[in-house]
Amino acid sequence: MSRAQERVDAYIDEQMPRWSDELSRLCRQPSVSARHEGVEQCASLVAELLRARGFLAEVTPEAGGHPVVLAQRAGLPGAGRKLLFYNHYDVQPPEPLELWTSPPFEPVLRDGALYARGAKDDKGEFIARLAALDALEAVYGGYPCDVTFWVEGEEEIGSPHLPEWVAGHAGRLQADAAIWEEGGVDADGYPTLTLGVRGLLYVELSVTALSRDAHSGSANLLPNADWRLVWALASLKGPDERVRIPGFYDAVLAPSHRQEELLALLPGQEESTKEQYGLQRLLLDRQGPAVARATFDPTCNIAGMGGGYQGEGAKTIVPARAKCKIDFRLVPDQDPHDILRKLRAHLDSQRFSDVQIDVLGAERPATVDPDAPVVQLAAETAREVYGLPARLIPMTGGTTPCYLVSDLGIPVVTPGVGYGANGVHGPDEHVRLQDFERAAQHIARLVQRFGAGQ
Amino acid sequence: MSRAQERVDAYIDEQMPRWSDELSRLCRQPSVSARHEGVEQCASLVAELLRARGFLAEVTPEAGGHPVVLAQRAGLPGAGRKLLFYNHYDVQPPEPLELWTSPPFEPVLRDGALYARGAKDDKGEFIARLAALDALEAVYGGYPCDVTFWVEGEEEIGSPHLPEWVAGHAGRLQADAAIWEEGGVDADGYPTLTLGVRGLLYVELSVTALSRDAHSGSANLLPNADWRLVWALASLKGPDERVRIPGFYDAVLAPSHRQEELLALLPGQEESTKEQYGLQRLLLDRQGPAVARATFDPTCNIAGMGGGYQGEGAKTIVPARAKCKIDFRLVPDQDPHDILRKLRAHLDSQRFSDVQIDVLGAERPATVDPDAPVVQLAAETAREVYGLPARLIPMTGGTTPCYLVSDLGIPVVTPGVGYGANGVHGPDEHVRLQDFERAAQHIARLVQRFGAGQ
Repeated sequence: MSRAQERVDAYIDEQMPRWSDELSRLCRQPSVSARHEGVEQCASLVAELLRARGFLAEVTPEAGGHPVVLAQRAGLPGAGRKLLFYNHYDVQPPEPLELWTSPPFEPVLRDGALYARGAKDDKGEFIARLAALDALEAVYGGYPCDVTFWVEGEEEIGSPHLPEWVAGHAGRLQADAAIWEEGGVDADGYPTLTLGVRGLLYVELSVTALSRDAHSGSANLLPNADWRLVWALASLKGPDERVRIPGFYDAVLAPSHRQEELLALLPGQEESTKEQYGLQRLLLDRQGPAVARATFDPTCNIAGMGGGYQGEGAKTIVPARAKCKIDFRLVPDQDPHDILRKLRAHLDSQRFSDVQIDVLGAERPATVDPDAPVVQLAAETAREVYGLPARLIPMTGGTTPCYLVSDLGIPVVTPGVGYGANGVHGPDEHVRLQDFERAAQHIARLVQRFGAGQ
Repeated sequence: MSRAQERVDAYIDEQMPRWSDELSRLCRQPSVSARHEGVEQCASLVAELLRARGFLAEVTPEAGGHPVVLAQRAGLPGAGRKLLFYNHYDVQPPEPLELWTSPPFEPVLRDGALYARGAKDDKGEFIARLAALDALEAVYGGYPCDVTFWVEGEEEIGSPHLPEWVAGHAGRLQADAAIWEEGGVDADGYPTLTLGVRGLLYVELSVTALSRDAHSGSANLLPNADWRLVWALASLKGPDERVRIPGFYDAVLAPSHRQEELLALLPGQEESTKEQYGLQRLLLDRQGPAVARATFDPTCNIAGMGGGYQGEGAKTIVPARAKCKIDFRLVPDQDPHDILRKLRAHLDSQRFSDVQIDVLGAERPATVDPDAPVVQLAAETAREVYGLPARLIPMTGGTTPCYLVSDLGIPVVTPGVGYGANGVHGPDEHVRLQDFERAAQHIARLVQRFGAGQ
């Protein structure tokens, strides 16, 4: 390791209290995109953090959506390459609040980790990148390449307005590589790099069966919104987990030979997943290679449903209205708009034309070539920083709007602060400080070598 | 009509503002049994209203349940017969509050009707009976028979503790006849008498699939509580409305010849029901005689369900917990405990042992002999007061714990204040003052003639 690299690592280590403070400040600002809570304030704060580092930062309105922060800073003289960082400043709703040990928007350090909604996803990732750049600035007096930050505010609701925004700003996103989220270490402490993300179709299904709730003594005579919804849902998928929408699987590609190779190298996550959720067995009794391979299957998941009386005790009504939220995770080459058409056609054919569909999100899946030079560089630098070889994950369960950048021909890598049990989207979300520090060190090294033309 | 009868009717008419005030006072006291809200206060108020009329009134605790008010007052010297009034002081939850024109516990007179939760069910019935007795007292100087009031506080949650209470107080309920709820006029203005009520099994089904909500990127690996519940529910009944629990229909009796005769005399309720709930057609396209006959079919009704994220917008989780409430309306000779056993066996056989059942109510159905003398007397006096023949309804959709009195061999009649569109169990519950007045006049005449030995 060179002296300069040592100084970068040491700088990041010494300044950890500062990054932790900055992350706390960012997490203290709620930014729940699902209910438009605090998004403008959070976008301003993100821009402020970037401007404080010499970035030119614009908060650009999305048509009908939440602001996007776009910030650019040139590298040192002679720097020729361009690097794009994608982040999002919005977070998932924190409910159920009663399951949090400390309030979600009051960040707290506990047992070497910072607890708050967004501590990992994605505010922790953002601050770790700033820490890496600060260290490069301190040691080298500047950045080794041109840097663009692109920080959106609708990732957690499926980035509905982002495609239109990208169409209007594609020129300013041009880069030789992009750094995305979803990386970190796995349960064994190995660094991971994610090479594929799933697409998403997020819909709300709703039924209005009556003009108002009725006494259930008339249940023989009146349609029941809850029953209508239950039967419509049961028509979509049975306990065999096979989605019954005709054509749903038509565009699904099996993993490539190279992806199969990478899957075979991944460790089992069966035991850790069972432990995390208190299970005796995984769904469909999946075991061994089937667990890792499951990310190549699309899903049809009910994220929530409700209708009628949900209070304590007994109330005897025929519910007038019911609704549910479904997220379909899609794999290459499924297209959310195609799946939506097939869902509508299926419901109609099954006599569920009374079930209304509202689309809350639509994103395509995306993959990265495992042999792209920047992927190799990220793997190599990960091994140096973590002391263990990187594990390349050909497809992850989640969704990011990565396809928007893949479409521009930009290869994507994912160094990051996660460790797989950060509680993202659930209660007690947190980031471990040790993960944060090593992610920042990894990113600094990756950026430095990328700027040097490796 | 005798002079005394005229004076009774006139008294009730003149004193309407007083009854309206008393009813408002009673409705202003919330008494939501489902969440144990205000029940003790309401029981005290009921006892106070009875004591003010010379009743000896006890508020007796039910073991583990809500208080029961038991009150007795002897008739005039020479009165030999005993009459039992059954009422309940508890009400349904008022939600959804936003659909009420005025707040549910702030009674308001509007367009000749009193609006409040409980205005009809069952506080309106109770005050109408007091009005009838007050009129008899004013005109005759006392009651023509011994009168017992039995006012419980758990009717709206299935009277779970009442059977045990009755076992301990059966001697004090003895009577030659009982007056129950569920009567009034129908949509054509004809007085109605209800001769049968359905039983009830009210259960809450719940599923815990995970120790906590998970990111839906893992939906391929984790059981989903919402899906488990949807499939369990879909196994109970399909869109053909036939309940699929083996043995569910075993004990169902077809209507008797006499009940069929009464059904054939009933007017169609098809158009009024469609109008009330904004429907083009009734469930299963029921028409003509099938509508009235439907009350002789048992039901399996989802009264409410919920699980996962129900807020605004998108949240991508695998829900850990889900639950729903089901009311089964039962007909002779179905037994709720037998149905419960069959429900459990069915869920287990369909691989839904993970679905937990909690019983929130269990009541047997009950019927009255249409040719019992007190039924004939009630029909005769109804004709006199309303100027139209009474329509005898062999079975109604709702449930009351009538079986507890039928089991004691006491015949039951149901003069009452309803008109079929009172909004009971829903928003904007109300009682029309004209219905209230005539019900009180009807009850007064019925009680007077009953006391006279007719």
